[in-house]
Amino acid sequence: MSGWDPRAVIAAKRDGRVLAAEDLERFVGAVATGEVGDGPAAAFLMAAFLRGLDASETLAMTRAMIASGETVSFPGLTVPTVDKHSTGGVADGVTLALAPLAAAMGLAVAKLSGRGLGHTGGTLDKLESIPGLRTDLTTQEIERQVEAVGCAVAAQSSAVVPADGVLYALRDATATVPSVPLIAASVMSKKLAVATDLILLDVKAGSGAFMKTTEDAVALAEACLTLARGARRPCGVAVTDMSQPLGDAIGNALDVAEAVHLLGGRHRGRLRALVVFLAARAAEHLGGESFESATALAERALDDGTALERFGAMVAAQGGDRRVVDDPASVLPSAPIVRPITATTAGTLAAVDAEMLGVASGALGAGRVRKGDPIDPAVGLVLEAKIGDALDPSLVVGTIHARTEDDADGALLRVRSALTITGASVDPPPLVQAWLAPEGE
Amino acid sequence: MSGWDPRAVIAAKRDGRVLAAEDLERFVGAVATGEVGDGPAAAFLMAAFLRGLDASETLAMTRAMIASGETVSFPGLTVPTVDKHSTGGVADGVTLALAPLAAAMGLAVAKLSGRGLGHTGGTLDKLESIPGLRTDLTTQEIERQVEAVGCAVAAQSSAVVPADGVLYALRDATATVPSVPLIAASVMSKKLAVATDLILLDVKAGSGAFMKTTEDAVALAEACLTLARGARRPCGVAVTDMSQPLGDAIGNALDVAEAVHLLGGRHRGRLRALVVFLAARAAEHLGGESFESATALAERALDDGTALERFGAMVAAQGGDRRVVDDPASVLPSAPIVRPITATTAGTLAAVDAEMLGVASGALGAGRVRKGDPIDPAVGLVLEAKIGDALDPSLVVGTIHARTEDDADGALLRVRSALTITGASVDPPPLVQAWLAPEGE
Repeated sequence: MSGWDPRAVIAAKRDGRVLAAEDLERFVGAVATGEVGDGPAAAFLMAAFLRGLDASETLAMTRAMIASGETVSFPGLTVPTVDKHSTGGVADGVTLALAPLAAAMGLAVAKLSGRGLGHTGGTLDKLESIPGLRTDLTTQEIERQVEAVGCAVAAQSSAVVPADGVLYALRDATATVPSVPLIAASVMSKKLAVATDLILLDVKAGSGAFMKTTEDAVALAEACLTLARGARRPCGVAVTDMSQPLGDAIGNALDVAEAVHLLGGRHRGRLRALVVFLAARAAEHLGGESFESATALAERALDDGTALERFGAMVAAQGGDRRVVDDPASVLPSAPIVRPITATTAGTLAAVDAEMLGVASGALGAGRVRKGDPIDPAVGLVLEAKIGDALDPSLVVGTIHARTEDDADGALLRVRSALTITGASVDPPPLVQAWLAPEGE
Repeated sequence: MSGWDPRAVIAAKRDGRVLAAEDLERFVGAVATGEVGDGPAAAFLMAAFLRGLDASETLAMTRAMIASGETVSFPGLTVPTVDKHSTGGVADGVTLALAPLAAAMGLAVAKLSGRGLGHTGGTLDKLESIPGLRTDLTTQEIERQVEAVGCAVAAQSSAVVPADGVLYALRDATATVPSVPLIAASVMSKKLAVATDLILLDVKAGSGAFMKTTEDAVALAEACLTLARGARRPCGVAVTDMSQPLGDAIGNALDVAEAVHLLGGRHRGRLRALVVFLAARAAEHLGGESFESATALAERALDDGTALERFGAMVAAQGGDRRVVDDPASVLPSAPIVRPITATTAGTLAAVDAEMLGVASGALGAGRVRKGDPIDPAVGLVLEAKIGDALDPSLVVGTIHARTEDDADGALLRVRSALTITGASVDPPPLVQAWLAPEGE
């Protein structure tokens, strides 16, 4: 008997009391080491879910999660560094394009990603569809690469915030995922554990995101910002629309091809708009530019090929085939069946069930249900139609990339069921719904 | 993947929805088998603690707990049978006396007890302080003994309601013990799993009990009664005072000696009053007597030696030394040190910290902290003073039974710290605070 009883912490939260930082830190630390088992940890999570955690408790929990493992810094970097995180959505290929774009603008991007579960692979899986490309870089390799090339996208070591892995698995099993303070602690512990000069967060709002409403997304954004302030770290948060897929590609290699097109100035849609917005906000904060001139700089870097060049340099530095920037189709794996997507009726696209499109892509083999499941990099779908667009059965609005005709049949049914078509005219939803600037701006 | 997701059950309770019986039964059954692990089970328990379980949910949970194991019945018994349970308190030796008293009144008592943790041993440990006595009887042995002798007190098989063991251990570890529906389901699942003609519950209220107020105790009593009604089983519930120890003895062999004195008509206190009350209520229900005549019958059975004779017969039937009824001191183990208890000041006993007396007895070696810990049957304490009694430093109000002088010193300090003495006069608290009669009375 150590004299310390984790049940006192659980009971206090159960009864709605505010926990002292030292109690929370002790409890979360003990969960991370396994000293406190799944049962007490889950009871705490449910009590925290139902009673809430205030700003001071969320900060203490986040600090305890960070203290559970190693932290990362890049003392050798001479350029201001930005890290970026999205709360996740469908066709959210922002990172693939943002990292080289920011590098082309003179910033440095050290982006460490986790390997989650989902209908499609994560950023690491998408990048790894480029033959030869490695994402398991050491901190020293990341630092050298960022200094040389301007950007690196690598796997976050499991030695960083191991508590998050334990807590997230438990939340997933215990219906305690959708809690603003628990999500904020999970997101921010992983960002705060890496020393960068700016954290950019993209909190998604809408049917295809975790936060279904702008209000909920803003609440999460504010909780994350409060944590960053508590840790004295500059952080900007965009709340952006996920009522439909952000980009067009929903897969892995398909997303790389889309990023190549975007970085080469050949894609002009909402994905480009958001990538430009975030790059400009980073330059505004780190480079002292006005937002307007930073936006112009970003647009130029996409249109003059410098951003695409940075992507090629990053791919090459990580061992991948650099020719992907010139001819993605010849380098990236492709699926044997390509089926055009058409609508069944004419009208205006009023709504898109982004979740259903994710399910369709997952059923084609683009994602994983269990950790370690293999994913098929070649399959997925591309949907160019966005809310407000006019559709017609004769118009091809995308493609399904499948292993078999049967798979393609199933995906087409799902995609069509995801599209709501009306006779009325529909305005596209605003893309950036809120921007919470870093302190002092 | 079975298609069934336990998280849907947790999420529904988390959100305050009322669960369907089949969902609760499936969930609890899966917890019992280990199909659902500690984490999800604990999250459910905390959600149930904070959101509550209504009567239908508590009944479904109780049924699922019963269905997790074997049930017990005594088809060969020709006399009406009563089972009894107390929610636990200090110096609560009711069972030892009630079983033979009811037998002397023509009823049958088949009392199955669990082996809990506590400052003193449970009923089984107390009985086992009689040399040779066995409590691990088979159902057939219990049935034969009850038919022949009128009563048996035996260990409840771990094959009966195994879900309770799993859930209780988890509740203990997760600060989810003090919940009326969860307590009611735990208590009643074990009583309803044994087919008897009457269940008598003694719900304790006061500082020495789990339920600190009469209101809380009545709420638990009503929840238990509702479960009994739902299972169509006759059940009477007494809510009784535990603002001080019920009897005088707090130990194991000391409690047996007290029961022998009580059964022989030589003890006249609150313990006797409650034993008579419960025996009379049982006879009122099962024998069709009026409560008044049943009370007179019970008093007579204590005073004419027939109740004590039944105790001797029960002890003998279970392999114990029957001479305990004639000369307990010569049969029962005794401690080498017997220290008189005196108060430090004169005045009226205004309050007794029963919990502290339990701690004092536990520190002498009378209880166990961990399952399987050995207990010392000889040690403990006897405190004759009750609230309202006049105390004086010259008056011996009890004895401490210890292995060493040091132990006795420590116990005396604890006992004295447990006694609040005032100059004012104090009324003794009422013993039976509520009686919830079986249906139809």
